[in-house]
Amino acid sequence: MTPPLRIGLAGLGNVGAGVVKLLAANADLIARRAGRPIIVTAVSARDRSRDRGLDLAPFSWVDDAAELATRDDVDVVVELIGGADGPALTLARRTLAGGKALVTANKALLAHHGLDLAADAEAGGLALKYEAAVAGGIPIIKGLAEGAAANRIARVYGLLNGTCNYILSRMEAERLDFATVLAEAQAAGYAEADPSFDIDGIDTAHKLSLLAALAFGSRIDFAGVAAQGIRALALADIDQAAALGFRIKLVGLAEHEDGALFQRVHAALVPLGHPLAATDGALNAVVVEGDFVGRLFFQGRGAGEGPTASAVVADLIDIARGQPGPVFGMPVGALTALPRADASARSGRYYLRLIVADRPGVLAELTAALRDHGVSIESLIQRGGDDTTAMVAMVTHQAREADVLASLAQMAASPVVAAPPVMLHILDL
Amino acid sequence: MTPPLRIGLAGLGNVGAGVVKLLAANADLIARRAGRPIIVTAVSARDRSRDRGLDLAPFSWVDDAAELATRDDVDVVVELIGGADGPALTLARRTLAGGKALVTANKALLAHHGLDLAADAEAGGLALKYEAAVAGGIPIIKGLAEGAAANRIARVYGLLNGTCNYILSRMEAERLDFATVLAEAQAAGYAEADPSFDIDGIDTAHKLSLLAALAFGSRIDFAGVAAQGIRALALADIDQAAALGFRIKLVGLAEHEDGALFQRVHAALVPLGHPLAATDGALNAVVVEGDFVGRLFFQGRGAGEGPTASAVVADLIDIARGQPGPVFGMPVGALTALPRADASARSGRYYLRLIVADRPGVLAELTAALRDHGVSIESLIQRGGDDTTAMVAMVTHQAREADVLASLAQMAASPVVAAPPVMLHILDL
Repeated sequence: MTPPLRIGLAGLGNVGAGVVKLLAANADLIARRAGRPIIVTAVSARDRSRDRGLDLAPFSWVDDAAELATRDDVDVVVELIGGADGPALTLARRTLAGGKALVTANKALLAHHGLDLAADAEAGGLALKYEAAVAGGIPIIKGLAEGAAANRIARVYGLLNGTCNYILSRMEAERLDFATVLAEAQAAGYAEADPSFDIDGIDTAHKLSLLAALAFGSRIDFAGVAAQGIRALALADIDQAAALGFRIKLVGLAEHEDGALFQRVHAALVPLGHPLAATDGALNAVVVEGDFVGRLFFQGRGAGEGPTASAVVADLIDIARGQPGPVFGMPVGALTALPRADASARSGRYYLRLIVADRPGVLAELTAALRDHGVSIESLIQRGGDDTTAMVAMVTHQAREADVLASLAQMAASPVVAAPPVMLHILDL
Repeated sequence: MTPPLRIGLAGLGNVGAGVVKLLAANADLIARRAGRPIIVTAVSARDRSRDRGLDLAPFSWVDDAAELATRDDVDVVVELIGGADGPALTLARRTLAGGKALVTANKALLAHHGLDLAADAEAGGLALKYEAAVAGGIPIIKGLAEGAAANRIARVYGLLNGTCNYILSRMEAERLDFATVLAEAQAAGYAEADPSFDIDGIDTAHKLSLLAALAFGSRIDFAGVAAQGIRALALADIDQAAALGFRIKLVGLAEHEDGALFQRVHAALVPLGHPLAATDGALNAVVVEGDFVGRLFFQGRGAGEGPTASAVVADLIDIARGQPGPVFGMPVGALTALPRADASARSGRYYLRLIVADRPGVLAELTAALRDHGVSIESLIQRGGDDTTAMVAMVTHQAREADVLASLAQMAASPVVAAPPVMLHILDL
């Protein structure tokens, strides 16, 4: 048997601990599959004394993670520190500069610096792999870069953030409002103390920008992702959506159309018959639409120690086999810089929800705002709120997004509208 | 750019034509992704004059497919002839003996000769790839061999035959009986003139035996697959299953438990909340359960020109990249020969359906047969049939399979039972 592949592991949180446990638990099987053993030789984390339920004695301890990049007993550095810059970026750069392969679960790092790091990896003939960065245990990076590689991909979309999906599923199942579920999730450790990366859609945007590059052979454009989160959603929206045959999900969606790139993260109404609608709790799911393969659907656990470790070690096995694959599915120089699509020119159906004064003439004013911009209404529900307000929820017919937004601005300016209107896209895919 | 990868294509049916079309339609994109162009140089099929809507002029025509194995202008042979033996096997052997890579969509060939061919490929350091052999466009071979490679897989199962899934979906949607839908499907070309490979579960068994080898690191044991098909199913079974909260699907299921291999193809009742239940028509789907990743679910088109060509060309891109991967996820010599599990020792819930004489005491006799073997009943429906018979459908509580079979044998021997009883497994997974 060839010599072992030796791993230097930076970061011993849940995922890092999971990688150590997985490499130990399935060591024999992994060696059979990889053609050689895969062993951890050195580790680094912020706090050496913390009890992680792991025996770290077999590994060399390194205080400064960046030292892993230059150790003689390390072939591959696994970066699980997190963060787009700082120690993670320093370690990534030094690893590739030092001629070692890099495996990372860090979507923020790659969304911001992925092209530069990929160029470094290419220049050195080194592996740079990141299956764990998107959708946890689901092999979607491989699915796009290799499985669907024969296809012109028109669209890739999915549920990429387990925290948001958990919050929305729990609001619906337990009939709780957003703030209550968020506070619960924070207390239980499912959501960060500062939850904005998750609930404002930024984490999903990081992941989406990577999927888009792989799908379309385009340069990563994280800044081009229009991201909205789920803070504005009320339980009433979930109820109205259900009454209309939809479930609300935070969807990351990227399309390649007419030579332009459209990328958006948004809460959307997913028809109950669509497989994303049945993707609940901590599950993630991704849909890939290719010109020959049609629709592919992948679903699995999007986070957590075991699934994420599974993805990290899959990358290590590929490296051990000598089959790292191109970082973004093709050489960095072959990726095209796509212009951003004009979102306002899109059309679709939209869900609009307004809190309005409960008095005569209000509905006439709202519907006039839509009529003024040529938007017609497919269905409308009005319900009493407290003593003085009512809730109006509507689904439009197919309409131009710019027209819907103009109607909405007109409504929002009216004194009868008591709170900022909510507009959600309907995922008619 | 490196020189093109040159393909010799044997078989120009739907899939072969699809491969030619795909390589032409997406040639530039494929070259960017593969790092080199992939071009067809030579083709072979039974009938040169047949109109396939393809311009074959650019390709050398070869009357005897086996000649592709020795042509100087061919790097990879794509075998799309079909059949476990005969010309497909001859071509496969000669291709590998001649030092060329082989890509095939032929599950029958691999179920019977896969280990020998993989050994030949290994001995020659050659690629042998077969993504298109299982579940059409779904990258499930790659998903198991690479994506989930870090995991000890406990179970792999799914819907692997589009013809059966189409028939069952159409029986339900159109309220037609089995024979009518089969005749329709044959007339429309969705089912073969001799449909037994599909509807008796043999095609699913071929595919399942390959998935099991990949999942468990075990030697292919096609002969060890207990295969039942869907001939015995009546529309009434579909109706009863629906009334009980299930949909009937032909499921291929393989488990690795206590060092033994269990492989079965059977019509099963799938709970409506399970993702397989929503996999309709020509879709295929596969569930993989790994010890770290948990449940992964893959769904997509299981057959047809486009999806199958997508899988064939994905294999070609892997080969062009110089990343073929081990044939069955590890060297053939590392695959273990697992003993077959004792199916009668399994337990679960079962659906039983009987056509019985419509007279007093019949139900007492049936239920006594179950009681005699310690099987208890969770639910039971009796419905009138024609003037003289009635239909009884039951779901048992958890029971040993041997006990249920013994009860069933006792019932079948009774003069009150008018037709062979139907027993279906309930997929409580």
